[in-house]
Amino acid sequence: MTSTSTLTRAGTVTRAGSPTRTATRVLTGDRPTGRLHLGHYFGTLRNRVALQEQGAELFVVIADYQVITDRDVAEDLPGHVAELVLDYLSVGIDPDRATIFTHSAVPALNQLLLPFLSLVSVAELQRNPTVKDEIAHSRQHAVSGLMFTYPVHQAADILFCKAQVVPVGQDQVPHLEVTRTVARRFNERYAAGTPVFPEPEALLSAAPLLLGTDGTKMSKSRGNAISLAATADETVRLIRGAVTDADRRISYDPVHRPAVSSLVLLAALCEDVDPHQVAEELGDGGGAALKRRVTDAVNGHLAPIRARRAELARDRDAVREVLRHGNARANEVADATLEEVRAAMNARY
Amino acid sequence: MTSTSTLTRAGTVTRAGSPTRTATRVLTGDRPTGRLHLGHYFGTLRNRVALQEQGAELFVVIADYQVITDRDVAEDLPGHVAELVLDYLSVGIDPDRATIFTHSAVPALNQLLLPFLSLVSVAELQRNPTVKDEIAHSRQHAVSGLMFTYPVHQAADILFCKAQVVPVGQDQVPHLEVTRTVARRFNERYAAGTPVFPEPEALLSAAPLLLGTDGTKMSKSRGNAISLAATADETVRLIRGAVTDADRRISYDPVHRPAVSSLVLLAALCEDVDPHQVAEELGDGGGAALKRRVTDAVNGHLAPIRARRAELARDRDAVREVLRHGNARANEVADATLEEVRAAMNARY
Repeated sequence: MTSTSTLTRAGTVTRAGSPTRTATRVLTGDRPTGRLHLGHYFGTLRNRVALQEQGAELFVVIADYQVITDRDVAEDLPGHVAELVLDYLSVGIDPDRATIFTHSAVPALNQLLLPFLSLVSVAELQRNPTVKDEIAHSRQHAVSGLMFTYPVHQAADILFCKAQVVPVGQDQVPHLEVTRTVARRFNERYAAGTPVFPEPEALLSAAPLLLGTDGTKMSKSRGNAISLAATADETVRLIRGAVTDADRRISYDPVHRPAVSSLVLLAALCEDVDPHQVAEELGDGGGAALKRRVTDAVNGHLAPIRARRAELARDRDAVREVLRHGNARANEVADATLEEVRAAMNARY
Repeated sequence: MTSTSTLTRAGTVTRAGSPTRTATRVLTGDRPTGRLHLGHYFGTLRNRVALQEQGAELFVVIADYQVITDRDVAEDLPGHVAELVLDYLSVGIDPDRATIFTHSAVPALNQLLLPFLSLVSVAELQRNPTVKDEIAHSRQHAVSGLMFTYPVHQAADILFCKAQVVPVGQDQVPHLEVTRTVARRFNERYAAGTPVFPEPEALLSAAPLLLGTDGTKMSKSRGNAISLAATADETVRLIRGAVTDADRRISYDPVHRPAVSSLVLLAALCEDVDPHQVAEELGDGGGAALKRRVTDAVNGHLAPIRARRAELARDRDAVREVLRHGNARANEVADATLEEVRAAMNARY
């Protein structure tokens, strides 16, 4: 159901919502575990900026509590958070229009966890594919209460700002089902007349299949990812070391030549052209020509982003100010929602 | 372990804690499900006032979110909350020294649930006798996430104010073990040098075994309890209908004559004498004499409490002001603790 209704919305953002709001609210975010790379950029960051430019109101959560969901101790959180903010700003997320905030800075958002937990059964959490997945990928031995209740935290993250749209990958649709269930049950139980929460819709975006330079899944921890913040020289080195194959004829064939095709796709994305066209133009040039083209395309595309990032990075106070402003705004929104929740639950004294 | 160390403390409150505090902090509270009765009064309220008079700083949580733990919809929360505040004030809890607050009004307290949930495993929650007990007594069919994580909410309730002492019944000791575990693990993981949380101790109080007037467990819902707010006439009627037995000789023998002994004990508690003495004085007077004595004792003991309660009840604004003041104070304390938690977790940006 979700996929059908939202696929038709993909790419368009309708203006809906309460009488006091005109812009569609969109909730997105990241865990602060390191700098974002090209996979994030073409998979989600660019879409966020496009949504913003179409008039959506972005809420971007830096999910710092989620870092302790799957590992014991979060390392250098302040550093990672600052890098994320720099990544956001450099790609064009506008802090005057978007609300960039850290999860742990918004108590009223987190308080929503309590009423929401009462609306979800333990059996439902046990069955949840996201929880199962989190458990499978966990770095911890035992499943913590935080991990177990993770979909309900997500419901709080999404519903505190009454987001109507949540961009997700296909594998994340079950996350959103819990949020939709929580919203529906809260409205039914406490707010039958005037629903407090929208049932947010998944905005399914087909993330391009970019592999790391070693031909495996792109991941910061594997050292096979080109981060937005990498220098042009670092980019040259990484792409020079990329895996290709012995066939000098370049083609775009993700199934049979995944590593070469990923490089072709990367150049095409940066140049905003069709990957088949890139392959055709390269013809029999072989891996060396392909890598030159990819390097130029990536460094060319990222040059203005990196320049902006470097400039922003010089003024750490300004970065902190973006976060202060975003956190203040998120608290304002969360306080208002919590007050509505208290009213609906008849818990104002 | 808990029981040993705390039994020796029973009845005395030592002054301990941080350099900036001299009074021992004590966390107590109730669910707002109705007026308190004599079971509550002799079981816990009187002890709280005694602790206060010995110099302890009381935090009294009106656990409104816990009402939705074991039932779907909370009825007339505002009314029940106001009645609880009136009960507290009328028995002598002093709002200038104690902090009376509602759970749902303190977001920073509730936020503590997230880091705390990361310190407790699902297996530990499944094994927890309190959770098992909650599930057994639940009015709901499915076990909700709120009920499942209940001991962790309690940890947040207790630790937000760094309570050193929690008065509990013997059956509630497992509650506190989770809180002690959470405090210990948080300190070990995030604050090895300077612990953020004390490991609170159970103050075991032997609640007198008072039965309802029908000889079964005293409970508001059974209509067998004398509430603090009952009138003298209502008290007369309830005790007149109390179950006794055919033996005219009054004795204090809880094992073999539970109903009669409970009435004897109630008179003794109100008169602050030994129940055996009450029984001896009544001699062969039979049930009628016993009931007259109990009625006079209860109405005599409660008369000043009821007079104070009636006077306070006339000024609902003053009651609301007590709660506003208490909630403001609880928020101040919770905000300070959450800030310490953020600092310990290196989550200040």
